[in-house]
Amino acid sequence: MTTRTSSHLVGLIGTGVGPSLTPAMHMAEGRAQGLDYVYRPIDLAALDIAPDRIGEVLGWARALGFDAVNVTHPCKQIVLRHLDRIDPVAQQLGAVNTVLFTDDGTVGHNTDTTGFAHGFTEGLPDADLDTVVLIGAGGAGTAVADALLRLGCRHLTVVDLDVDRASSLARELTQRHPAAQVDASSFDKLSVLLPDSDGVVHATPTGMAEHPGVAFDPALLHPDLWVADIVYRPLDTEMLQAAHAAGCRTLDGGRMAVHQAVDAFALITGISPDADRMSRHFRQTVENRAR
Amino acid sequence: MTTRTSSHLVGLIGTGVGPSLTPAMHMAEGRAQGLDYVYRPIDLAALDIAPDRIGEVLGWARALGFDAVNVTHPCKQIVLRHLDRIDPVAQQLGAVNTVLFTDDGTVGHNTDTTGFAHGFTEGLPDADLDTVVLIGAGGAGTAVADALLRLGCRHLTVVDLDVDRASSLARELTQRHPAAQVDASSFDKLSVLLPDSDGVVHATPTGMAEHPGVAFDPALLHPDLWVADIVYRPLDTEMLQAAHAAGCRTLDGGRMAVHQAVDAFALITGISPDADRMSRHFRQTVENRAR
Repeated sequence: MTTRTSSHLVGLIGTGVGPSLTPAMHMAEGRAQGLDYVYRPIDLAALDIAPDRIGEVLGWARALGFDAVNVTHPCKQIVLRHLDRIDPVAQQLGAVNTVLFTDDGTVGHNTDTTGFAHGFTEGLPDADLDTVVLIGAGGAGTAVADALLRLGCRHLTVVDLDVDRASSLARELTQRHPAAQVDASSFDKLSVLLPDSDGVVHATPTGMAEHPGVAFDPALLHPDLWVADIVYRPLDTEMLQAAHAAGCRTLDGGRMAVHQAVDAFALITGISPDADRMSRHFRQTVENRAR
Repeated sequence: MTTRTSSHLVGLIGTGVGPSLTPAMHMAEGRAQGLDYVYRPIDLAALDIAPDRIGEVLGWARALGFDAVNVTHPCKQIVLRHLDRIDPVAQQLGAVNTVLFTDDGTVGHNTDTTGFAHGFTEGLPDADLDTVVLIGAGGAGTAVADALLRLGCRHLTVVDLDVDRASSLARELTQRHPAAQVDASSFDKLSVLLPDSDGVVHATPTGMAEHPGVAFDPALLHPDLWVADIVYRPLDTEMLQAAHAAGCRTLDGGRMAVHQAVDAFALITGISPDADRMSRHFRQTVENRAR
């Protein structure tokens, strides 16, 4: 008998994380891999802990034996100043969603952006990335934008209801990816942009069960456009239904949700998880919850 | 597919808990029961957290998703004032080693004393308890004394190098168990006490790998005396070897160590664990570590 060292303790820190599907996805895969794996949601709002106390929360998590935490809204940026080291991709993005507690200190990573990239490569292999429109310049949109540019997108246009936010993100992306052309635009220009684009990624809350609808006129969809959504509740959003009807190749939001967890699991355990198994677990859970 | 609710997160809070065999024992049983079960040692000394901050540690453990903690030296008494409710047996003893985080608040239990009782009943069934000598009036001795008196011991004599400590414990025990006679005595009286006793329990550190030897003259052992040790590293202490040689029935320290964990596991999970399996795990680990 050897001393078991394969137990893992992980948390998800943020506000409103109770319904997150990530803890169950990690634990199911941990169990399938033969690991003792416990993953706990830590809801700052329910605990009445202000987000700027994230450093204190990390310190206690480490002290009490956590191996790692995922960090989500509203802590992905403010967590950076509490880390000993930051992975270059996360550093460039200015956002961290995965913190490892290592013998050499706390290390930040961002598996939202790597997760979108892996999900994209898996779900839309060989998709043309020359000219892409990104709708939504918030945190998720930023992670998607960096992923698209790392994947080779040459011309990215960022659209947001808040045009200043779109312009600001476009400037940051241009600095980070000088080889690409990144512009900001507004919703009323989509009728000009989409007909000449290879693809569009939607990264706003529109289409979620609580925010039904499509963020833009579905009549702009055409068969030469691939269409990606990051909304995953439901997986089959109105936008993706319209895209299917228009003959578009599509990528649903489940891919990013699963692959951010796949990448985090690999970082935390050093074991490459079974991404298909994690995806099946995730999709089954989404379906069950929707009932 | 149902949402899994069978994951358990437990800690062991105290100083020098790193080498404890309890976390591995719990996790092995949790796994055997099909649970996601992670149990972490939380060494206050290594973390440079003063023991009087136990309330703060409990608060964070609860916030970060722990279901329960075991509490050990030097926190078993000071933890009481930080609990919402205390089980009557633990309350009477004035010491808690198991804290459950329930929806109704924090609840303290003491499975050292129930564990000794269960181990005794299992290992020395039908042992006569009329007249018993307890050697060692510290925390472990106190838990043992209460167990012996609950099991029906009529006349208990407490012996300690510190005679004041023995007297103090004897007075407390008399208050808690008025039907029994409890006396204090000193080591030099063992030559008078042991010949007329049914059994003796040894509850000092003597006999541990770091403190070799026997706490009293083994020539006082006789075949009508049962002999119990609470030392479990090693399991086969010099005292127990002498007791075997003298023809005594014996109970080794592994019984209490295992049954405190068995009882804690049952409180934490609501599942009766397989005590024999936990015992095999524990004894195998002790043997492997001794090599």
